[in-house]
Amino acid sequence: MDGIRTATPEQEGFAEAMVDHGLLIRSEIPGLYGRSHAFEDLRRRVDDMLTAVWADEHAERMHFPPLMPRRQLETMEYHASFPHLIGTVFAFDGDEPGAADLAVRAAAHEPYADDLAIGDLVVTPATCYPVYPAIAARGPVPDGGVTVDPGDGWVFRREPSHDPARMQCFHMRELVRIGAPEDVMAWRDAWRERLVARYTELGLSLVLELANDPFFGRGGKIMARQQRAQELKWEVMAPIAGPEPTAITSFNYHQDHFGQIFGLRLEDGREAHSACLGLGEERIALALIAAHGMDLEGWPASVRADLWR
Amino acid sequence: MDGIRTATPEQEGFAEAMVDHGLLIRSEIPGLYGRSHAFEDLRRRVDDMLTAVWADEHAERMHFPPLMPRRQLETMEYHASFPHLIGTVFAFDGDEPGAADLAVRAAAHEPYADDLAIGDLVVTPATCYPVYPAIAARGPVPDGGVTVDPGDGWVFRREPSHDPARMQCFHMRELVRIGAPEDVMAWRDAWRERLVARYTELGLSLVLELANDPFFGRGGKIMARQQRAQELKWEVMAPIAGPEPTAITSFNYHQDHFGQIFGLRLEDGREAHSACLGLGEERIALALIAAHGMDLEGWPASVRADLWR
Repeated sequence: MDGIRTATPEQEGFAEAMVDHGLLIRSEIPGLYGRSHAFEDLRRRVDDMLTAVWADEHAERMHFPPLMPRRQLETMEYHASFPHLIGTVFAFDGDEPGAADLAVRAAAHEPYADDLAIGDLVVTPATCYPVYPAIAARGPVPDGGVTVDPGDGWVFRREPSHDPARMQCFHMRELVRIGAPEDVMAWRDAWRERLVARYTELGLSLVLELANDPFFGRGGKIMARQQRAQELKWEVMAPIAGPEPTAITSFNYHQDHFGQIFGLRLEDGREAHSACLGLGEERIALALIAAHGMDLEGWPASVRADLWR
Repeated sequence: MDGIRTATPEQEGFAEAMVDHGLLIRSEIPGLYGRSHAFEDLRRRVDDMLTAVWADEHAERMHFPPLMPRRQLETMEYHASFPHLIGTVFAFDGDEPGAADLAVRAAAHEPYADDLAIGDLVVTPATCYPVYPAIAARGPVPDGGVTVDPGDGWVFRREPSHDPARMQCFHMRELVRIGAPEDVMAWRDAWRERLVARYTELGLSLVLELANDPFFGRGGKIMARQQRAQELKWEVMAPIAGPEPTAITSFNYHQDHFGQIFGLRLEDGREAHSACLGLGEERIALALIAAHGMDLEGWPASVRADLWR
């Protein structure tokens, strides 16, 4: 496959150490890892910590599978912004001779893409995406807005890399707010402060930065500049491996993007705006490991007590 | 899409009721559902119940993402048996003009399959599959064999259906045993009895049956007959919607299939055999709902106390 990002020596060393300490299990694919129970337990503690942090939001919790309707992603115009990140699920619709041919080619690892046809599913790139049509299906958004927590879903971004902080499959926890523009913007900004404070309690050294999404190509550079000029995306970064910190959480204001696409309206008739927090649970776990060491049982007692409560 | 299974009136009624009671959230794809937190909470209680049931196995726990290496599935000869169930992930590898074309077609829901290329990942069809190469990478299997619990991973089977018990994406809990032939076979048979007893305690009416996998085509009929003749697969069925019970758990003896493919050998040099239990967590949850009602809080106190302990 083309375009596999190389890792810095620090990133490769961190990946090696994670495997040696029995935290990650390598696959033959860059950026695709199995996890030991020790690592998964830490990730679930991070997940529980986040559930507790925003308990006072009384968010409606929903859960979605790691695949979503292809048509929905098309409707969201995701293909215009991130064509390189999408995973589209193809399937075999052939007959008996076709199946026999496929079996022979597959067993020999020979090409058989022509035997497959595009299906109606894609791998979900963001846990919040199925939320907007589900809320839109209920009719007008109540005056106070709605807050939805779609849980610790798996997401996929096709970004093969040897940097363990850039996984292709990971758990993206999100919190979604849909409501009036001024409300949604203030909500996002308040959460920027609250999460920085919470991560600091856990011993992370943080940098808060204006950011942009990894839009494709030259046209994408213009979209990125616009996104920054309008301060639509902020990121909290923490060190994982080497001097460059990695984004562990993003704070995103979508304006009326999803409101328009899914016909989300407030009860007073205005178009609804939306924002979401996007929290990479594996990256938070990796940042904690970078701060406190590969021996999870040897972490500072205060951090252990905080997460394993 | 072709081949969407229709539901019986009972199955369609059960699906309607699940949606009306706020347990499932429909998508536009048959067999792909979002879940309310009430349903997901029940599924996690089922998951915890299973962890407790086999605590005395002291299984090594591992966790894997919902995508796996395509080459690994090919090596397992899955394409020869179940070509119709596979989801293969395709991606966009094109240039800037290609991306512009893709964006226009996708936004208009026009065909664009030719713009995509086959990638190196498939959607995982069984949570135990990544276990065998991970164990093989460690060298010979210890004399006493190994038991692995790969957790509550998401799996995919392309079986679009309006029967809510036949989801395309669901959580398949598995327990895997790799060891000497006689040990592995006895292990599987003992678990058949233990799980039937545990499900009975939870108020399910069960049928235990010899079964076969849904092999493709006419050739598959022969494979199915062989599988039954050798008693390689048993299933526990429970009623969900209508008179036909649905398999909630399977007990599978693979003989030396995975041992041969991944070079799994015992320390004494013999080829390792393997078996697995496959537990459909959503189906167990649905069977419990069918037995005790859509109002989860109104379930018999003994069942509530057992699951929500």
